[in-house]
Order: sequence, then structure tokens, then C-alpha cells
Amino acid sequence: MQSWEDKSEIEITFLGGLGEVGMNCFTLETEKEFFMIDCGVLFSDLEPFSVDVACPNFGLIHDKMPKFSGIILTHGHEDHIGALPYAVQSGLEVPLYASPFTAHLIREKLRGFGLENSVEIHVFRPGDTLKFESISIQTIPINHSIIEACSFVMRTPAGVVVHTSDFRIDDHPEIGSRLDSKAFEKVGNEGVRLLLADSTNIENPDRNPSESELLPQLEALFLNQKSMTLFTLFSSNIGRVSQLFRLAEKHGKKVALCGRGVETYIKYARESGYLASIDSCLVSIDQLESYRRKDRVVLVTGSQGEYRSVLARVAMREHPLIHLEAGDRVVYSSKPIPGNEVEIGRVINRLFQQGIEVLYRRTPLLHVSGHATRPELKEMHDWVRPQHFTPVHGEHRHLFLHRQLAVERGMRDDQVSVVKNGDCIHVTPSDVWVEQRFEDTRWLIDSTMRIPVSRDLVKKRRRLGESGLVTVVFPMDSKRGKLLSSVEIRIAGLLEDPEEAIEALKTRVQRVYQRQIKGNSFQFDALSHNVRLDIRRYFKDWINRKPEVQCIMVEI
Amino acid sequence: MQSWEDKSEIEITFLGGLGEVGMNCFTLETEKEFFMIDCGVLFSDLEPFSVDVACPNFGLIHDKMPKFSGIILTHGHEDHIGALPYAVQSGLEVPLYASPFTAHLIREKLRGFGLENSVEIHVFRPGDTLKFESISIQTIPINHSIIEACSFVMRTPAGVVVHTSDFRIDDHPEIGSRLDSKAFEKVGNEGVRLLLADSTNIENPDRNPSESELLPQLEALFLNQKSMTLFTLFSSNIGRVSQLFRLAEKHGKKVALCGRGVETYIKYARESGYLASIDSCLVSIDQLESYRRKDRVVLVTGSQGEYRSVLARVAMREHPLIHLEAGDRVVYSSKPIPGNEVEIGRVINRLFQQGIEVLYRRTPLLHVSGHATRPELKEMHDWVRPQHFTPVHGEHRHLFLHRQLAVERGMRDDQVSVVKNGDCIHVTPSDVWVEQRFEDTRWLIDSTMRIPVSRDLVKKRRRLGESGLVTVVFPMDSKRGKLLSSVEIRIAGLLEDPEEAIEALKTRVQRVYQRQIKGNSFQFDALSHNVRLDIRRYFKDWINRKPEVQCIMVEI
Repeated sequence: MQSWEDKSEIEITFLGGLGEVGMNCFTLETEKEFFMIDCGVLFSDLEPFSVDVACPNFGLIHDKMPKFSGIILTHGHEDHIGALPYAVQSGLEVPLYASPFTAHLIREKLRGFGLENSVEIHVFRPGDTLKFESISIQTIPINHSIIEACSFVMRTPAGVVVHTSDFRIDDHPEIGSRLDSKAFEKVGNEGVRLLLADSTNIENPDRNPSESELLPQLEALFLNQKSMTLFTLFSSNIGRVSQLFRLAEKHGKKVALCGRGVETYIKYARESGYLASIDSCLVSIDQLESYRRKDRVVLVTGSQGEYRSVLARVAMREHPLIHLEAGDRVVYSSKPIPGNEVEIGRVINRLFQQGIEVLYRRTPLLHVSGHATRPELKEMHDWVRPQHFTPVHGEHRHLFLHRQLAVERGMRDDQVSVVKNGDCIHVTPSDVWVEQRFEDTRWLIDSTMRIPVSRDLVKKRRRLGESGLVTVVFPMDSKRGKLLSSVEIRIAGLLEDPEEAIEALKTRVQRVYQRQIKGNSFQFDALSHNVRLDIRRYFKDWINRKPEVQCIMVEI
Repeated sequence: MQSWEDKSEIEITFLGGLGEVGMNCFTLETEKEFFMIDCGVLFSDLEPFSVDVACPNFGLIHDKMPKFSGIILTHGHEDHIGALPYAVQSGLEVPLYASPFTAHLIREKLRGFGLENSVEIHVFRPGDTLKFESISIQTIPINHSIIEACSFVMRTPAGVVVHTSDFRIDDHPEIGSRLDSKAFEKVGNEGVRLLLADSTNIENPDRNPSESELLPQLEALFLNQKSMTLFTLFSSNIGRVSQLFRLAEKHGKKVALCGRGVETYIKYARESGYLASIDSCLVSIDQLESYRRKDRVVLVTGSQGEYRSVLARVAMREHPLIHLEAGDRVVYSSKPIPGNEVEIGRVINRLFQQGIEVLYRRTPLLHVSGHATRPELKEMHDWVRPQHFTPVHGEHRHLFLHRQLAVERGMRDDQVSVVKNGDCIHVTPSDVWVEQRFEDTRWLIDSTMRIPVSRDLVKKRRRLGESGLVTVVFPMDSKRGKLLSSVEIRIAGLLEDPEEAIEALKTRVQRVYQRQIKGNSFQFDALSHNVRLDIRRYFKDWINRKPEVQCIMVEI
């Protein structure tokens, strides 16, 4: 463990969220304490190999347990809280700090892992200041696509560190008010040692429309609703849900919820004091049938084309409760997360095939982003005026574009550090420097076992999926170290009709065996090594593939 | 085989291209002859299981060989000619008809399979009319993102069938002239029994900008070029290549080509008489080094983020010939094909990390589409005024939106047939009706074996990739039908540390074996069936997975 010569030094280490959209997580260490800010997952493209998500490698910080004071969460999105169960499961049983709504989501999440009693959850109100021994964290409510999202102003021995986390500027949000720019300006006046700011939406040169600007477009859908309408949206977008219920009530529609996501988020939003007035039009999905088709509205999960989501099943005509008819309407009040375009397209195609009207394009405007665009980020920089800046939350191009923005605003190159996962930023009142601390900060999580799996195992699965597996069984006389009969060979997943290849391989394996026993004493490890090489060479030459090979000795 | 009672009847059967973007292919049959129009591949999302492309199931039409008069190609894109080697390889050794440039591409493609001498290639000039015994095909050159693309006017016993194939309307194309709307109007006046038209870009409500409208934006890049610039584009887009060379010449730049795609397409374009004047600035990649960095331009492959493409390797700093430095520039004169966003994003991120300037967004305009948008399609309908219409080339939503367009233009519902792969449209001078002929028209092609593989084999690979394989070896006394010693068990790809599970499974397998031999005579098939069930149940209960299981008997 590093020594702490300068008691005013702090270390900020990134375990995720840099060079990727997701897995937001960093640690902040002072001489006396250790904190984690956010603890998110990253949705993985390794699904074919049973890896749905990646999360920070919590093993890297287990040695910090003695001084670990807590994990503090900025808001309740999966890429900020989704990895908590893996953290706790790995042994990081430390206090959590979250807003009321976020705390509900966390409890639900831990319950799913049987971990609800493993950690304390401390609830703060957005706007509160959390006081720890060596730092304080002032939470500033901001605008985002989920309620109770906060920026953090962390007053540390090295000075003030501002972490915007995900945010946007919305002059007229559906819930809450415009973010308090005065609060940020005030912190700016105080002097900010380091700013960490969301970079996700830096590529967008135009200011985001306000959430309230969706109202006329959404209302038009209620006004001309001729049959049943399904809305799909990011389930956590409680502001959007609120707008839809307000419109439903105004136009005499009945609204049902379908899908775990929408049901859960809305339940906890209500328990946290939001959506109080939706009862007048909220009905169960069974009750919906007693209303005229043109008065039926359902909020459903599945905006990202997720397999087995409600909307995907409705599109496949496999949902037990929702049956669409030609003339019904499906509205995507969302946007595709990059990488999901093909799956979403499949659902839309199936809906079209059934004569459903599908609204999924950018016109009319049925969705706004929760992430600050370039002009909004510029405003944040203007308010905070940091001495040092590190762009966070984004792929590499986002981070570099965000650096560009800071430099255009007048920061010197040496005042901006673009860092990567595993890097540690050292901050003192007089200095800032970056050190690479960890090489690989990522755990891959097996989809059904819900535990980390090694890259080697995933690589093995990938190879099996690509080229299958050749099995060679050697029946051996264990005393004399001699093959008792011909080897048995099976080829799984590689060839359509493997019989001929099996015959050819038998001959080759015999030859390798003969060569082997001519040498000194017989060793099975050496034999299987050579057989493996020989078989892989055979397939490489023949069909340019190198299947996995397993050799099994059966001793009689 | 169907009887041919009405000699004026024709049958159009779709083997691909409906409900998907790619694999364009249909057959046209008259009493006396059988034709195929286009023969394309579909890029597959089964790459993790070694299936790169899908193509039409040519086995379905082998019985047509006696009357098969030829395959006629509208243009040289992969989704129109890419399946020819699989067609020929499967036995469809029939004459091909193509434009000079397309014929070059086809020859190259067949050569790659050692099939260049298996079929005759007849070359036609766009504008020519091909005369067969029972039909004639008038080719009309149109605008598209590849040179020598044609629409087909097929004069058949049932009347005139117009197939637009891929097209757009470009008032000022870089190569050739605006498509000859008069020709289409003339055919319209003649009376068109059936129109088949491209639907790919129907979602776009705005007319495409002309290819020539890119010139100012592209020129700006040459004017302010401060260092080496790489352009990546769809390699077949010879019009774009021509623009870039014209600008390079004007501004004194030297242009090298790098990557099989750009090299091949440009080579054959030149052999077909295009790009005649590029020699003044075309240099080899080696020669490029002798020019100032700000005068170096390279056209490279990899606009879709393809693995091991030139641009992907450059971004990884693994390309032997192209080394970028901070300040160099990479220009995407292309757009992402849906599904490739993530791979493209990865390349762009890596370039950003090295300080490369990357132009990849929609502003400035550096790419235009080759497919007709809604207003352009409307014009085509206005010219052709068909009695019957079937939208082709597109996902389901595109086909349905295209039907909507036709109906809005005044066609009756019963004049428009939205059909799917495997459907056959029967056309007579007085009637049009649709029949489902084939269930599954698709072959999946193994990436390195380059032969069709069954869905079952691919499913097996998928299962292996998801959950691995459990192998159980039974050493048997063949005479007495008795297990000689304990079974051997291996678990590949499923668990990190399989030892404990193997021990548990050994006990279970013993139990299944004991139960089995208590019954009547011993049967290995029954034993392995029960062992398989038991092992899958074990993992299902434990970790909600059902791995593949193989049982191997070794007889001594």
C-alpha cells in the first residue's frame, strides 16, 4: 500500500466508465478514508458466450476494506448502481449512500441476490451534504432522465472536486426544477481543484430540447388515438411516465403497466412520493379490457428490443396478456442505444407485419436525451471554472472531444487529463498528476451463474462456438502404458458429417502415438499435446480452422 | 412440377431480399424457360458461430435446370452477385448476363472459388435488350452507388414486369447521367403489369442530395489538408473515387490505394473504361513516402469497422504500410450499415486516442445514399403507373411503408402484394395471385469451409458457445455389457473450476447406470440418453444452464 506522505493528497482511481459508456465507478482515497462513487455495470457484447454484463474488478480494492467508508451513488441508473450486488458479493460489505428513490432500487437489486441484509443503506435528500471524517460531499440535484440524480461537490484535503455525473440542463423538466446553476457558480467562486464531467453526449452540437417540449407531440398521439396504444420507454424515465399519465388523464384514457421494469420503477417512484395523482387512470392489465380499445394505453418494457421483453413478445404474438390488432399503435418514446439497432429493428418489423402503426423515428420528437450536449457542457465549465479537468463517462472519442471543448474554453493542455480505466489521479493543493495503477479493471459476469468468469473461460466458449470441439479418447493399459484398442474420436459443432474426418484423424492419431512410444518412456501429457497440435494442423490445412481438442485417457 | 395450363402465365418466386436488406434474388419462370434475377448474399449476425453470410437455398430450384436459361444481374454489389459462387458450386452451371464492370467482379468472385471456367458470362451494355425465347429484358441504366447499375423491363407472356432493382435519382451524378425518366414513362405508357421496386430507403422523407453536392465539402478537406489524410468509403463507389481523384489532382495531392476492396474495384473500373485520368496522381503506397505529408492521400478499406480491414489495423497500429501520426486525418465518406455501429465506433475511438482527427458524423455531408428515398420512389411510381405492385429489397417495415406509398398514390389494396421470401407471384394478362411455395429459402454459409451448413449445426455451435460441453466416457466390457471402471468426465467451457462438479456428476452417472442395468438387456443408447437428461437437469437446477452432453463408449 502506498505511503501517505502528504496528508492533503487525495487519489482518484477509475475502475470503469472511461473508454466505454457504462460501468461508471471511481474511488476516492484520502489519508484516512476510502470511498467509491457509483458502482455501475456495462452491458456486454459477449452475450453469445453467456456474459451479459461487465463490472469493475472489485478484487483490486479489497485491501482498502479497513479504511472503506462507503459507496455513494449519484443516481439509480444501471450503469451507476448495477454492479452493487457483485461488489457486496465479493466482500465489499460497506455502507451505501443514496437518495430515497435510488435506495429503493438498490434494495430491490440486492434482494435479487439475497444480499439485502448485508449492507446498511443511508438515505440522503438531494441537496443534502454528507459529512465524513476527511471529506464532505455536497449533493446538488441536477436534470437527468431519472429522478433524484445529483452532482457531487466533494470538499477534500486537496481542495474541491466536482463530479457532475450524468446530467443535462432542462429549463422546464416534468419533475423538479431547472438545475441550480447558482450552486455550481458558487462552488466555482470557491475555487475548484478538479472537475470530472459527463462526456456521453459531447458529439451533439445542439442544446437538448426540454422534456416539456415533448408534450405537444405526445398529446397529438392521445388526441388522434383510434385504437389501443403501447408506449415503450426507458423504464426509469419517471418524468416521461408522468407526462404520459397527465395526458392520459386529460384525454380520458386508461393506462396499464406491463413488464418488470416499468412496474418496479413506477412502484418505487410512488413510494418515494412521485406520481401521486396517477390513480385516476391507472388500471391493471386485466381491467383494461373493459374499456373501449381507443381508450386503452399500456406502458411496456422492451424499447431496446430486449429478448423476451414484453414488447418483443407482443410482436411475436406470444404475450399472454397483450394482443395487438391491425390499427393499434406502438410508440417508441426512447432511442436506440448503439448496438441494439438490429434487435429493435426486428421487433418493429414484426409489428409492421401485423398492420400495427409504429412510431419509431426521430420525427415527430418523442424522446429527448438525459445527457448534456456540447453547449450545455460548455455552460457547466463556465460555472465551475476548474483548475484541472478530467472528462469522464464516455468512449475515447467522447473524452477527447470533451478535452477539446475545455481547451477551446481556454484551459491549458496541462490542465486537462484524459485518463483511462485503471488510472489514478493524484491531487494535492498544488499538484495534479496521473499514474497508471491497474492494468485490467474489468470483471466479466456470467449471465446465469452471476459470478465473475475469467477471460480464458470466455475465450474457450468463443472457440467452441466458432469451431466446436474434437474429443479423442485413449483406452490405455495403465500398467504397460500401452494403447489397448483403437482411439475413439468425436467431433462436436465443427462439421456437418464428421465420419470421414474421424477416420482420417484415427490414422493420424495412431501415427502420432507410434512416433511417441518409439521415444523414451510414455507420457500422456506429451502425447495429448502432440495429438492436439496434429489435429489442429489437419483442420487448419483443410478448412482454415483450429478447433479445440481434448484428449481423455481411460485407464483399464 | 406445376403444370402450365395457361401459356401466358409467369411465376415470380422470391428466394431472398424480402424482410431483409441483402440476399436479393428472385426467379422468373415461363412455360418454356426459367431465369434468375440477381443472386446476392446477406451479411449474417451469426459470425460468432462461423457463419459470415447467408445465401438463397439453391437446392430448391435444381429441378429447373432443364429449362434454366440464365442468371441476369442488375449490378455488382455483394447483395446482388455475392451468392453466385454458391449457386454455381451447388450445380447451377447456367449462363450469366452482366454489364462489363459487373462481369469483371463476377469473374474475380468465381476465380476465388476455382469456378471461373464453370459458366459462360455474357456481357451486355446498360441500355441493351436481352432476347430470350419467351421473354426479353430491356436494361435501363439508373443512378446508384455503383457504376453500370440497371433496372430491368421484362416483356413476358403475361405482360410487362418492371424491376427497378437498387436505384436512386441523381440529377448530377459523377459518372453517367441522370436516369432516363422518359424511358420509364414510355414503358408506363405501354402498360406495366407488375412493378417490383427497391424499398430500402423508404423511411427517408427527403430527396437524396446529388453525388455532386458532396464536391464542396470534399474539396474543403483538400483545401485545408495539413497532414496525411485517409479516406474510407464503400469500395464499389466508383463515382466517389472519381470525385476524390479529381480533387486530388486539382490540389496537387498524391493518392495511394490500400486494401483489397478499393484496389479490386478500381482496377476493374479502369478495365471497364472508367477513371481513365487518375494516373497523374495515383501512386503506390511505397511511393507516397517521398511526398510531403500534407500531400498524401490514401483510400482505404474498413468503413464498416471490419475486423482486420486496413483501417482497423491502422487504428490498432498494426498495419505494416500505413502509420498515422497525431494531426493526420481520417475521413469516413460512408455511413454505418445498421449493426456495424459498435465495430465502427471502436475504430474511431482508437484513432482519437492517437490524436488523429476523425470526420465521421453527418455534418459536414461526406456521403449520400444510393437508394431512392420516399419522394424519389413516388416519382418512379408516377412514371411506371403499374397495374400491380410488389415492394422488394427491404425489411418488413420498408415493404409495408412502400405499400402505404403506393396506396396513397391511388392504388387499391388488392393491387399491392407485400410478399415474403418463398412466396410465388403468379401473373397472367388478367390475374395476379400469390402462393406460398417454399418455407425456408436460406442457406447459411460456413465462413471458412464456404459451404452451406445446417441450422442444426449452427444451433449446436451456439449451445457450445453459451454453455460448453460435458463429455462422459464409459469404458465397457463389450462381451458382458458391463462398465469396466469408473466413467471419465470432462467439462469444457462451462465452469471456471469444474473439479467439484465432475465428482458430483460421477456419482449421478453411476446411479443412472445402476438403475439402467437393473432393467432388461443393456443398451448404450438408452444409457446415454438418460445420462444426458440427468446431467442437463443437474446444471439446470444449479445454474440455470443446459450444456451439451456427449457420451462416448469405449469397448475393450
